[in-house]
Amino acid sequence: MYYVGVDIGGMSIKVGLVTIDGKILKSDAIPTQQDAGFESMVARTADLIRSIAKDCNVAESELGGIGIGIPGTVNSKEGIVSSAVNIGWFNAPIVEEMSKHFNIPVKAGNDANVAALGEQKFGSAKGLDHVVMITIGTGIGSGIIIDGKIYEGNGGAAAESGHQIIILDGELCNCGRCGCWERYASATALIQQTKSAMQANADSLMHNITKERGKVDGRTAFLASDAGDEAGKKVVNQYLRYLSAGLLNLAYVLHPQAFVIGGGVSHEGDNIMKPLQKFVDNSLDTSGMHPYIKVIQAVLGNNAGIIGAAAMVM
Amino acid sequence: MYYVGVDIGGMSIKVGLVTIDGKILKSDAIPTQQDAGFESMVARTADLIRSIAKDCNVAESELGGIGIGIPGTVNSKEGIVSSAVNIGWFNAPIVEEMSKHFNIPVKAGNDANVAALGEQKFGSAKGLDHVVMITIGTGIGSGIIIDGKIYEGNGGAAAESGHQIIILDGELCNCGRCGCWERYASATALIQQTKSAMQANADSLMHNITKERGKVDGRTAFLASDAGDEAGKKVVNQYLRYLSAGLLNLAYVLHPQAFVIGGGVSHEGDNIMKPLQKFVDNSLDTSGMHPYIKVIQAVLGNNAGIIGAAAMVM
Repeated sequence: MYYVGVDIGGMSIKVGLVTIDGKILKSDAIPTQQDAGFESMVARTADLIRSIAKDCNVAESELGGIGIGIPGTVNSKEGIVSSAVNIGWFNAPIVEEMSKHFNIPVKAGNDANVAALGEQKFGSAKGLDHVVMITIGTGIGSGIIIDGKIYEGNGGAAAESGHQIIILDGELCNCGRCGCWERYASATALIQQTKSAMQANADSLMHNITKERGKVDGRTAFLASDAGDEAGKKVVNQYLRYLSAGLLNLAYVLHPQAFVIGGGVSHEGDNIMKPLQKFVDNSLDTSGMHPYIKVIQAVLGNNAGIIGAAAMVM
Repeated sequence: MYYVGVDIGGMSIKVGLVTIDGKILKSDAIPTQQDAGFESMVARTADLIRSIAKDCNVAESELGGIGIGIPGTVNSKEGIVSSAVNIGWFNAPIVEEMSKHFNIPVKAGNDANVAALGEQKFGSAKGLDHVVMITIGTGIGSGIIIDGKIYEGNGGAAAESGHQIIILDGELCNCGRCGCWERYASATALIQQTKSAMQANADSLMHNITKERGKVDGRTAFLASDAGDEAGKKVVNQYLRYLSAGLLNLAYVLHPQAFVIGGGVSHEGDNIMKPLQKFVDNSLDTSGMHPYIKVIQAVLGNNAGIIGAAAMVM
């Protein structure tokens, strides 16, 4: 039996055929083309699923189900996308619509939740039941796995941890509130913090690094810090404090077995994981909260979406 | 069948005999006397259970189980109290110890979690599956109920939401970190905020109210605010903003069906519930997070501990 994982994004819809042990047999993508509308997007996705299955010589009867990850609020019990701004879906009956094309189980979930499931079933957190994944990108996404299952709260609206407030009355966030975690600890925030440190420190190595690499990005301060630059070190240390503040809030509320860190910034590897682990250990030690929580780098990268989506129907 | 609820506190151990529909048939209390040690405390509790059952003409064969709420970190799967500072228990095998006295099911849980279960099964949140209870007292306690069951995280250490940070680098908390929610939104914090507003406003009604009532407490600012005092209103409004900040963080992470608010400050009733409901509605509206979350006043008061403990073994 094979399982279909669909990862719907603002730019492209990715589809993969996944084995029971979480390997992608074949994957492909089409442009999202949201202007064509909901039904057309689903129909084109269904065509891609059939074409990939055919390429792999897999019959429809050998497909165990279709899992779909969506960038928005998904009520998975009802099979309805309540709201997915980036692809223009509101109250979209995704499970019903996809079921018009296939006579196999279909499930849908929020993309960050689905990625967390992928890492928990087949990635860096394999073997753990209780995991919180944080994806650091333009914003901060998060997914919560409890007892090996996605936790989505009432109506699918949970796990929006990027918008927990870490500094009341702090900087204005896109969500309209002030002081949200992602306003301080997303890759976007890191780049802003790097830029203002560069303005304040004309002799920082960060300027040379930017010239070499063509732009300021999430690596700039880390590279400077590695090379001994004081201004770069300050940016990195302050950024890690912001990142750990939100992580610790999640530790106090959820106390999972592990935090899985994904997204672009996570590629810094031990430069991030080690200090974060130290922040978490030290804080939980002070509070007498045992056992400690592991901080782990995500390993599935962009495939987490497809693999996690497929895992929903295994 | 009847169920025993035990509520262990730093000062007293309360025991109640509870019916299947959550009514306390009879309850009584003994001093905690932690100096006598763990085994003696459990033995004296067992004696009290027997005495109450006898008074109610209930035979041991009619007891369905014993649930025990404990002020500390409890690993309920293992039946062990990892740490309960106020009563001096560390790695205490409470379930094993109580089972020496009775041949019926015994379960143990953290007291805030147990109170949340009480409110969810028999109190203000009856009929809801997914509830977070916040108890506002000396600190802020919290209990999380998911699918009608206590959620305690890995090793029983979850739901310590009072120590989520809402102001990074804010005021020093007892836990050793800075900016914790309870440092701003506990009853203790409210009293401090009231006192400093009184120092700054010599003509505030809060002074007269304090004279009448003998001391500054959690009601002082609310009473002044009700009577139109501007300084009192400011204290209340700022306090409610602190309270709602942590509540909203929990909304973004957990998105339960309801928040149940308990503890002394909750007796202000609509003075607190209505503005908190408004903060929650407005914030979730901005973020497109539906459905909204109800804010409900707890109704079981001090009995929540006994009733919730009994509910664990029903």
